[in-house]
Amino acid sequence: MGILVVGSVALDSVKTPFGERKEILGGSATYFSIAASYFTQVAVVAVVGEDFPDSHVAFLEKKGIDTSGLQRQKGKTFRWKGEYGFDLNTAKTLDTQLNVFAEFSPRMRPEHRSIEFLFLGNIDPDLQRSVLEQMKRPKVVACDTMNYWIDNRLEPLKKTLSLVDILIINDAETRQLAREPNLIKAARTILSWGPKTLVIKRGEYGALMIDSKSAFGAPAFPLEEVNDPTGAGDSFAGGFMGYLASCGNSDDSALRRAIVFGSVMASFNVSEFGPERLGSLTYPEIENRFREFRKLTHFEDL
Amino acid sequence: MGILVVGSVALDSVKTPFGERKEILGGSATYFSIAASYFTQVAVVAVVGEDFPDSHVAFLEKKGIDTSGLQRQKGKTFRWKGEYGFDLNTAKTLDTQLNVFAEFSPRMRPEHRSIEFLFLGNIDPDLQRSVLEQMKRPKVVACDTMNYWIDNRLEPLKKTLSLVDILIINDAETRQLAREPNLIKAARTILSWGPKTLVIKRGEYGALMIDSKSAFGAPAFPLEEVNDPTGAGDSFAGGFMGYLASCGNSDDSALRRAIVFGSVMASFNVSEFGPERLGSLTYPEIENRFREFRKLTHFEDL
Repeated sequence: MGILVVGSVALDSVKTPFGERKEILGGSATYFSIAASYFTQVAVVAVVGEDFPDSHVAFLEKKGIDTSGLQRQKGKTFRWKGEYGFDLNTAKTLDTQLNVFAEFSPRMRPEHRSIEFLFLGNIDPDLQRSVLEQMKRPKVVACDTMNYWIDNRLEPLKKTLSLVDILIINDAETRQLAREPNLIKAARTILSWGPKTLVIKRGEYGALMIDSKSAFGAPAFPLEEVNDPTGAGDSFAGGFMGYLASCGNSDDSALRRAIVFGSVMASFNVSEFGPERLGSLTYPEIENRFREFRKLTHFEDL
Repeated sequence: MGILVVGSVALDSVKTPFGERKEILGGSATYFSIAASYFTQVAVVAVVGEDFPDSHVAFLEKKGIDTSGLQRQKGKTFRWKGEYGFDLNTAKTLDTQLNVFAEFSPRMRPEHRSIEFLFLGNIDPDLQRSVLEQMKRPKVVACDTMNYWIDNRLEPLKKTLSLVDILIINDAETRQLAREPNLIKAARTILSWGPKTLVIKRGEYGALMIDSKSAFGAPAFPLEEVNDPTGAGDSFAGGFMGYLASCGNSDDSALRRAIVFGSVMASFNVSEFGPERLGSLTYPEIENRFREFRKLTHFEDL
């Protein structure tokens, strides 16, 4: 089936209580692509600057990712610098340099326009819609967003939401978007704007999926080693969409398993810095953790 | 089998964005007892003052709770006054008057000493141990504690922990008790002090149970109506212990279901003020929500 992902590719500098890395491969589309690459063919659309190391492109290609949509433009690559405290829950952003990402205008290559699963990463809602307009009827469209767009571009964002099937955001964004402190009421409000399914990421607490008929809740996989939470949400989205694309549908049963595969990919990702662990996985390791997840959540009926 | 619970019975005044109640029936042993009463015979050991309304005693007795261990002493009943903001996650304590609870010294009646399931509510660790010493070998002992005892009475608390089977606390307390930010590492440390099982309550995020061999994670039941979170943790513990006592054992399968029954009781409790909803339940409603919980968490294997 295949997935097209549009988002950021960046150079990240990150510090946690367990170590530090400078200018490593980062960005939402990077984490998403690598996670999804274990399940299906992935094409990435993003922009990098002249300084983006060829070795990073080679790394993505080695994972089987189609990088023909990775535009290289004059200027420097998007850079993000952040730090985490001992609770590892929230990053303190120390520096953001948008560089070439500031003028990003995604252009779909003809061979990408008929890809059936589309993930619109966290970019301007108008750009998300411009991507959608360039695509032939994708089967499943999911998107992400963030507090900045909710605060500053709410109406364009609502327009985008009216066109997507699945919205994948965190719980603070859910409440902020609906202006409602109760998460379930907030979800109902957002679903009334268009998406059939809302996937709420809750970090170390897991994920909650809500649609008009049912809800599915999954804890996060308990980990003794968490070194760097950067990219957890994007790895989650990559595993989620990757699994959906691999089975070619998005019925309730597939969506539930997809949530678990998303959680599995996020759990691997956070155990090492950057996409180090995510990039070195094998599919049997992923399946094995899926089974451990079954044991984690299983209880017998009455 | 039956349960004996030792803890507080109080008069609570609580304000949330959805309403306000003054001097209603509260206290950890109250919520615990009512929740557990749907599963098994419960005896409560606590202290109240001369001002404690007979109607509250009658209410507990109507739920089948044995109140013969409810000591009435000269003075006023323990009072707590708190307020919750829109997120409903943490109570701001406005006033605490320990009153007769300050001198509480639990004395077990002879007919209570052979009860097989014991819950030591959140009281001084030395008092918790004095209760244990008065009991004939209970089959399962669970206990609660709080940040105050962790800060001020760590060594006595560790002595108590060396004697209990199950510790039921929240995630902040878990980290604080073990002085370890990683929850799973913290759990391992605490288990090394004695308890066979650690149950970590995570409020709106659910619960996590950890023992030496396995882990079980459950989300909280998603609710559109939350009016008052007071007593959620105690209702959880009551449902948890109540179910264990009703099936007479604490093997892995029983413990997992017990976590779900705990979550079910907490979910009912928070939907109304005080123990209003908890007190008006029927067992079929509880079983029905257990089954909804199955739907909430079920996903198919690979």
